[in-house]
Amino acid sequence: MLQPIITLVTDFGQKDHYVGVMKGVILGINRSARLVDICHEIPAQDVRAAAYVLFASYRHFPKDTIHCAVVDPGVGSERKALILKTDRHLFVGPDNGIFSMICNQEKEIKVYSIHTSKDLFSEISGTFHGRDIFAPVSAYLSTGRACSELGKPVSKFVSINTLRPDTEGSVMKGAIIHVDRFGNLITNICRRDFDGFLGRERFEIAAGDRSLADIVKTYSDAPAGKIVALFGSAGHLEISAVMGSASGLLHLGPGDRVLVHRL
Amino acid sequence: MLQPIITLVTDFGQKDHYVGVMKGVILGINRSARLVDICHEIPAQDVRAAAYVLFASYRHFPKDTIHCAVVDPGVGSERKALILKTDRHLFVGPDNGIFSMICNQEKEIKVYSIHTSKDLFSEISGTFHGRDIFAPVSAYLSTGRACSELGKPVSKFVSINTLRPDTEGSVMKGAIIHVDRFGNLITNICRRDFDGFLGRERFEIAAGDRSLADIVKTYSDAPAGKIVALFGSAGHLEISAVMGSASGLLHLGPGDRVLVHRL
Amino acid sequence: MLQPIITLVTDFGQKDHYVGVMKGVILGINRSARLVDICHEIPAQDVRAAAYVLFASYRHFPKDTIHCAVVDPGVGSERKALILKTDRHLFVGPDNGIFSMICNQEKEIKVYSIHTSKDLFSEISGTFHGRDIFAPVSAYLSTGRACSELGKPVSKFVSINTLRPDTEGSVMKGAIIHVDRFGNLITNICRRDFDGFLGRERFEIAAGDRSLADIVKTYSDAPAGKIVALFGSAGHLEISAVMGSASGLLHLGPGDRVLVHRL
Repeated sequence: MLQPIITLVTDFGQKDHYVGVMKGVILGINRSARLVDICHEIPAQDVRAAAYVLFASYRHFPKDTIHCAVVDPGVGSERKALILKTDRHLFVGPDNGIFSMICNQEKEIKVYSIHTSKDLFSEISGTFHGRDIFAPVSAYLSTGRACSELGKPVSKFVSINTLRPDTEGSVMKGAIIHVDRFGNLITNICRRDFDGFLGRERFEIAAGDRSLADIVKTYSDAPAGKIVALFGSAGHLEISAVMGSASGLLHLGPGDRVLVHRL
Repeated sequence: MLQPIITLVTDFGQKDHYVGVMKGVILGINRSARLVDICHEIPAQDVRAAAYVLFASYRHFPKDTIHCAVVDPGVGSERKALILKTDRHLFVGPDNGIFSMICNQEKEIKVYSIHTSKDLFSEISGTFHGRDIFAPVSAYLSTGRACSELGKPVSKFVSINTLRPDTEGSVMKGAIIHVDRFGNLITNICRRDFDGFLGRERFEIAAGDRSLADIVKTYSDAPAGKIVALFGSAGHLEISAVMGSASGLLHLGPGDRVLVHRL
Repeated sequence: MLQPIITLVTDFGQKDHYVGVMKGVILGINRSARLVDICHEIPAQDVRAAAYVLFASYRHFPKDTIHCAVVDPGVGSERKALILKTDRHLFVGPDNGIFSMICNQEKEIKVYSIHTSKDLFSEISGTFHGRDIFAPVSAYLSTGRACSELGKPVSKFVSINTLRPDTEGSVMKGAIIHVDRFGNLITNICRRDFDGFLGRERFEIAAGDRSLADIVKTYSDAPAGKIVALFGSAGHLEISAVMGSASGLLHLGPGDRVLVHRL
């Protein structure tokens, strides 16, 4: 029998016990679960960055992987706790838009609001639902429990619209949603949006004080220090500096605009 | 058969090979061990922070988990190497107080001083007992070897007293023992100490230049930026800034005082 | 049957999805693979630091471990992708010198250039060969595929010579190849080089503005703050500050010289 896989995306960082505690709780419920860290260095309470990292990684995991995502500024408030089910994966996390990009991508999604009954959960704190709700729910799903046992279907849940670009006339207004370790500026513009908007027209990309008229294939297609635009490994438009940091050179970061002008 | 779990708490950070080497050594002795990282970002040589992180996480792991903790400023000196055994868990690490908070918490503890006989250990370096002693001992325990085979019982070992608060008249003098990623200031005052000291009296908590007269239930019980006191997820009194960093706002860190005045 | 071990050394850091994606890809090909993180905090594109970390850790892993190393400034260019096979281990990574120190250490090495045939690899991007080549090749090796199925033997591959010290008359000119978390300055001078060069002569080690006439056994052999020289846990000459950071005190880092004068 295959060991079920549970991935973790959090903003808990690596200097505290929070991630370790979640792992202990999961293994206490299902000792055969395989835990895979995707990322714990999401900037504190940055739901958008988490939405992107989750989106960029989930599809590479095998069928039936359970993705547990905890970036949760509303912990202890009335916000719902969700399970999402697609044809290949399960997702567990707070109802704050963290799954927005998954929902844009996937066709068939069922969403459940977790009910925290006393027979499944011990005490639920006001500060650490990663430990008290999301880890146990992920573990219970990994033992084969049905979503419908753990929650009830809901049709309304939070979505972050700004995770997709706007279009006004001949301008597509995108935004930077993530800066990676190398200083690459990853935008909310995916290839389908880009191609659909431009058709066969020429274009100019504006990022900070730079204009870029080409899409390159790879970082080594230009000399060191040059700013280039390319579609990154997750399929999103990305502004990069060859052998350097575009974020540092252009002084741009999350939320800043990247425009595509149709010429 | 269940795969034995070995957790790791160190101050080795993530930019070097030290943690990886420990994992290699463990797997070389017991390939079926399951390795779980709790934390490797304990501030360098900060035994108190390690004591807290270990305390806050160990109880969430299943029975028979082996916790290997290596924050070891005295490596290569004459300090002893210990195994601790409670009714549910095993602990392996240097004799420098790293297990002080476990010892405050647990009733029945047996302590063993590891004897590094030549048939179990190859060369023991003067600089890396994580690799040469603590990883192999953890691995041997995970294969079912008895504590008494690996060490001899001892009754004296190092304890850090300042990990518990002092009381003087109507003031309980606590201290910050850990600052978490979110800037929350975690004190050495647990709920039992707090309640036992106050009874039903009113109180005022003094942290830096702030006075706090309430304990809130969760971070979202107050507006953004407000400083609040609450009992954190591990049961210790914690000073937090809603949606912000209490450490940054109050300029407080490990070792700084937090006082509880009984009114 | 033993679960095959795949270790990971990258410069992908922990704030992005890159490592998680590689793990997903590996588990998609071989769900029984055991993934062990050695290090993901290699400074961005620092092939030398990666060469050292890999060298310092690989030998501690059990026979048949597969080490996947991705620090790859030349991704998307014409640089080859390699498999190395020693009598105990397999290595997978780009042909940029990342395996130089393994090659200095091991006697019998077979090297293969990976051919990325379409039946084994789906689309290969220009930006993320960790996901598209190195993770799948590591996973295929872990399922028992032969190196010769995945690549063709080659005799020429990149080696970084400066990872070994030069000798000029009575001076051995070493260099710092890695600064660890504690600020220890690790040089490219191993004990064999050192002993071979000095024989039984006296010596003086020059690092920044300091001269050191002794090799100590361990960090606790000198008072706090003192600068000492010792052979670190991986067998290389290391300049350390007792209970402090030699890097901070001496203002030295990767590439800086450390000289051994034969007196």
